[in-house]
Amino acid sequence: MLCVHSPLHRGHAGTHEIYRGELVPCFEKPERADFVLQAFQRAGLGEVRAPDDHGLAPIERIHAPRYLAFLARVWDAWAAQGGTRDLLPAVWPTRGFRDDIEPDNLVAQLGLYSFDSGSPITAGTWTAALAGAHCALTAQAAVAQGARAAFSLARPPGHHAGTDFYGGYCFLNHAAIAAQAFVDGGAARVALLDVDYHHGNGTQQIFYDRSDVLFQSIHGDPRTEYPFYLGHADETGAGAGLGFNANYPLPAGSDNTRWFEALEAACRRITAHGAEALVVSLGVDTFEGDPISRFHLRGPEFTRLGTRLAALGLPTVFVLEGGYAVAEIGDNVVSVLQGFEGG
Amino acid sequence: MLCVHSPLHRGHAGTHEIYRGELVPCFEKPERADFVLQAFQRAGLGEVRAPDDHGLAPIERIHAPRYLAFLARVWDAWAAQGGTRDLLPAVWPTRGFRDDIEPDNLVAQLGLYSFDSGSPITAGTWTAALAGAHCALTAQAAVAQGARAAFSLARPPGHHAGTDFYGGYCFLNHAAIAAQAFVDGGAARVALLDVDYHHGNGTQQIFYDRSDVLFQSIHGDPRTEYPFYLGHADETGAGAGLGFNANYPLPAGSDNTRWFEALEAACRRITAHGAEALVVSLGVDTFEGDPISRFHLRGPEFTRLGTRLAALGLPTVFVLEGGYAVAEIGDNVVSVLQGFEGG
Repeated sequence: MLCVHSPLHRGHAGTHEIYRGELVPCFEKPERADFVLQAFQRAGLGEVRAPDDHGLAPIERIHAPRYLAFLARVWDAWAAQGGTRDLLPAVWPTRGFRDDIEPDNLVAQLGLYSFDSGSPITAGTWTAALAGAHCALTAQAAVAQGARAAFSLARPPGHHAGTDFYGGYCFLNHAAIAAQAFVDGGAARVALLDVDYHHGNGTQQIFYDRSDVLFQSIHGDPRTEYPFYLGHADETGAGAGLGFNANYPLPAGSDNTRWFEALEAACRRITAHGAEALVVSLGVDTFEGDPISRFHLRGPEFTRLGTRLAALGLPTVFVLEGGYAVAEIGDNVVSVLQGFEGG
Repeated sequence: MLCVHSPLHRGHAGTHEIYRGELVPCFEKPERADFVLQAFQRAGLGEVRAPDDHGLAPIERIHAPRYLAFLARVWDAWAAQGGTRDLLPAVWPTRGFRDDIEPDNLVAQLGLYSFDSGSPITAGTWTAALAGAHCALTAQAAVAQGARAAFSLARPPGHHAGTDFYGGYCFLNHAAIAAQAFVDGGAARVALLDVDYHHGNGTQQIFYDRSDVLFQSIHGDPRTEYPFYLGHADETGAGAGLGFNANYPLPAGSDNTRWFEALEAACRRITAHGAEALVVSLGVDTFEGDPISRFHLRGPEFTRLGTRLAALGLPTVFVLEGGYAVAEIGDNVVSVLQGFEGG
């Protein structure tokens, strides 16, 4: 399997995040990608190559121009003011506020485009996120050109990022960008499956009123688990998208039997959708040893996941999302990909 | 002039807030009220009395029951989990998220009901905010019963708090609660004037679609000044409230001539509205020495403000809002009240 990877991810290296009210070292760090890359190469799964530059156009199909302009300029604007520390929002528009006027104040801009204070913007964030989008687009192009599957190994992750907001360590929604590239390449029906422990709120928001991209997410129940404000079972799409969004929230601590029941339901739906291509938001924070999640998957379960996805028989792009038990993240990702290759 | 005050405000004493991205000691601290009380008594302006208990009903006329229930229970729920540090939100619902389901997670609840991370909730926050609401209601009752004016000397302040959210150091909107009490007492038209340096976004949100309460605010331009996402001149009300909201955003650093031109326009409009009562959101962070604001009012200007308000000839309730140069805050408030009494 082709793996697309860029070392530019290292430029996104926050020092601290605010996690459940306390300032803690970032969970989402460069070592994550290093561990996955090493495990991929150790397993001899295939070629690792750098992404092609697909330009901004396919990214603008998903994200609002003013949001992209903000991400592209915010660090330089901050540096021009003499700023050096990581940028975190501290005020944001809630009910009754406007979001149609962008404030001149940088901290206010951060709040306008974000939904948590756990996602620091650093000097290299935009470059890293952009490289990640190109990794996903390059993997998608390989699959569109005939490869059975490809793996976009990038960070920061993407599935929490929406049309015009970041959060949950995510800035550009790489999986959504890849799914859109399938549509723009002529696919009438695409499936996007999110198996990260956390609901893919950004991806849901992006495709919520569309019927061409079926979005499904298996995740910890948002009543107790991040991102809290989306991911309930009754969110089934809107307008033309009604019936094309499916959430499988499982109580924190759910056993693997329940998890695979949800996977089975999601897979059947992908087949029923008549999907021509599959994009997988591959988070492995479902691992039983993950520091901020509470499911119980281990190596054999990750292999089983890959095997089941292969049985769908679809051209497939895997996009790396979360997974924070750094030492094990590589092995768990590789188990999924090996299960897929052997399936 | 009657001053209504409760020492319960001391229970709200946060240690730190996040101000423009950095953790700093709280600007909004108990000493603020102490300085105002001392100055009021030193000036011999009138009686200082404790508030009557008006119950929750007049507060529920302004704030959503689920929001009040959250404020009332959040600290105890946190303490039951062993929590001791001040509560600050770290994740919040933005575009595409839901706000109709309250998460079980406490930090997520904080984000659901807030719009900044500068407003810590402490053990005594609810008690203090509630006492402040009763100060405003007691002052309103005195005026409704014939007093020319009364002053609600309480903290935390209120004008940033909306129907179901807190922020900007504010939890219950005391001024809005007092204005509503005038309406519920039979007044057909009430004027609410906000002279705090910061736009009264909560008050605007509360009355935006109503014609009975004319809301006006003179403040630093939200393009650069907190609360950033509201307070522009084109916000003139909605539905039945169209034409009954007026903002006078002035560039940070504006001189006193411009400030008093805005005041004059606002006062003329109050007269044209045919208001039967006036509530003043009295922030004195328009002071030239204020640490987080950029207008230039001094003692004589505060006196002039009071004199102009008196010339409206209306039963008037003053409600303390912001003002952070603690040593001077008392003198500046007293200057307004003396100007009013002499006017």
